[in-house]
Amino acid sequence: MALPRDAGGDPTGWAALLNEARERLLPPLEEALRAVLERRLQPSSGRPPNRREHLEPADLPPNAPGHYGMMRYHLGWLDERLEPAAAPTGKRLRPLICLLAAEACGAPAGRALPAAVALELLHNFTLIHDDIEDRDEVRHHRPTVWKLWGEAQAINAGDGMHVLAHLTLLDLEAQGVSPETIVRLARRFAETSLIITEGQHLDLAFERRDDVTPAEYLDMIARKSAALLGCAAATGAEIAGAAPEYVDALAAYGMQLGLAFQIRDDVLGIWGKEETTGKPAADLRKRKKTLPALYALTRADDPDREAIRHLFSTPAPGEDDVARVLEALDRTSARRHCEHMVAHYSAAARERLALLPDSAARQVLEALIVQLETREF
Amino acid sequence: MALPRDAGGDPTGWAALLNEARERLLPPLEEALRAVLERRLQPSSGRPPNRREHLEPADLPPNAPGHYGMMRYHLGWLDERLEPAAAPTGKRLRPLICLLAAEACGAPAGRALPAAVALELLHNFTLIHDDIEDRDEVRHHRPTVWKLWGEAQAINAGDGMHVLAHLTLLDLEAQGVSPETIVRLARRFAETSLIITEGQHLDLAFERRDDVTPAEYLDMIARKSAALLGCAAATGAEIAGAAPEYVDALAAYGMQLGLAFQIRDDVLGIWGKEETTGKPAADLRKRKKTLPALYALTRADDPDREAIRHLFSTPAPGEDDVARVLEALDRTSARRHCEHMVAHYSAAARERLALLPDSAARQVLEALIVQLETREF
Repeated sequence: MALPRDAGGDPTGWAALLNEARERLLPPLEEALRAVLERRLQPSSGRPPNRREHLEPADLPPNAPGHYGMMRYHLGWLDERLEPAAAPTGKRLRPLICLLAAEACGAPAGRALPAAVALELLHNFTLIHDDIEDRDEVRHHRPTVWKLWGEAQAINAGDGMHVLAHLTLLDLEAQGVSPETIVRLARRFAETSLIITEGQHLDLAFERRDDVTPAEYLDMIARKSAALLGCAAATGAEIAGAAPEYVDALAAYGMQLGLAFQIRDDVLGIWGKEETTGKPAADLRKRKKTLPALYALTRADDPDREAIRHLFSTPAPGEDDVARVLEALDRTSARRHCEHMVAHYSAAARERLALLPDSAARQVLEALIVQLETREF
Repeated sequence: MALPRDAGGDPTGWAALLNEARERLLPPLEEALRAVLERRLQPSSGRPPNRREHLEPADLPPNAPGHYGMMRYHLGWLDERLEPAAAPTGKRLRPLICLLAAEACGAPAGRALPAAVALELLHNFTLIHDDIEDRDEVRHHRPTVWKLWGEAQAINAGDGMHVLAHLTLLDLEAQGVSPETIVRLARRFAETSLIITEGQHLDLAFERRDDVTPAEYLDMIARKSAALLGCAAATGAEIAGAAPEYVDALAAYGMQLGLAFQIRDDVLGIWGKEETTGKPAADLRKRKKTLPALYALTRADDPDREAIRHLFSTPAPGEDDVARVLEALDRTSARRHCEHMVAHYSAAARERLALLPDSAARQVLEALIVQLETREF
């Protein structure tokens, strides 16, 4: 069954499908995620009995939130005083894709839960470290971990969450997943994690270059962002014991979806509505070299190219600089080009999904494409 | 066969045993370690063909060493211009223990090679991040990674090496190790990595506290340093298919050896010979809260305790401050206490080792205890 491209206010359309899936799948995910962190604070056989006392002292000195306390703050469950909080969490997109892929291949979502938790932990480890590397002081309207507790502890808390992700994936054993499959999944998961660091390396390196091509940019976002969505979908499929062609189809679905998602983000970062993305042309003001500008550089005449290069080399660009670049982007139809690419990658994701037998879960995975394509935030 | 406690200049004693083992086991280890890094630069199926070009551009721009170039620099194989170099590397202690443990349990060392490489990568990842966290600018007489290429790229290069360690452990599959065993080893390896981040958390937290007890300090070094030596020995044993009691004996051997090693380090950091450790009382000048001072705090009278606390709270302690603390340590016999503890943990390591059947490899593992106990550097 093909979904309507835009269900608008229709509560039976793609938005309703997605909401239903989120309400069904995300509470158990959140519970499992919390349990993984809380388990680290329990004394258990083979671990020193004074564990909790040492790592999370009862009378917390100022600036000493405990190793796992920092992680739980980042995940939205504690406030800066480590009191329970209900801060806005992320969208939990990667675990959602993993759980739906498992269902689409015939397994109960619960079987994939340890992998879904591992994916969310891995994603959040990268956020903790990215915030340090980019000197970002705010995430989801709250101070970032390094801003509150310093770089040293934040680097180390990120390292802890990184390995906790790899450790949690192995909990698939308790779901009856075979050791052979777990080793294969652990390899895919670690390979993907490594590719993410490659993408981050390129992203940081691009900041110092003025000759980044659109192809290089696409390669970078494929590694930094899209690879993990591909891994999420393929992992769900493998846990369900899907045939290799379904695993590959879902891996490609996730990858294409990730590319569409990131380019849509780039479009919104420049032309998004003010009420949903903050200032207009936000990414230009932050001198982020995203696809629209990199594409325009390949098409613009000399004065326009000069204006774009000028913006990227100016520490604090003014309104004039931004306006000048917006004109250059217009003249090269950069927005239309990027929207075509979103449509292209969305169509590719949809095609790969169509290789799977129809199912309720497949329909939700398709709804995700529609949502990412059309979102305004 | 019991080894002589100090072979002195005797070339047939423990020093000769150790040298022979190093010469036999470390070249293949180094080769395997290099191969793991170099493999990441090869185009291969499923990876973009432009991989090498992107990640290690042929014409390296200044300050852009490539993701794996930074790792290879850190490991001692490249200089800061990324030309081949033979910089002093680490002692490769963890892989050596792993390979010897495998031999002591009846397996050829080659079978454990992927695990040995993984252990060395994990150790070096922690060094890259520790250098950032501690603001250390020099390691092995060379600038640290963050000092050369900035914190952001250094954090990310460390992350890459971290996951490369976990990925490489899975290469045990090609050595015929069963998936069941690999999952168990991956769990031990990830659990140990997490415990190391717990130790680092405590170490950083202790810098801000003036009431750290010797017991807390021992718990910290057990996590931060000794746990990985225990993991190395147990991993070698498991790869050899050793009985659980041998795995446990070797795990305990590594842990006790690690504690002895660290406390010996603490003693040398204060009373080591100048020609081998630099300035006398080097650790006191750096205001490092190591075991001798923490022990003395529990034994000293009020003026001595005040002198020690004063040193730790003084940004740049003078000669007087250092001399005053050395007197306080003398009055509490802190050195003798710490040397007793080294002897205690060494004896415990030796006892655990004696549970294994005698073998050439077991003798080398015993020689390691003697060396760590008696080393002056």
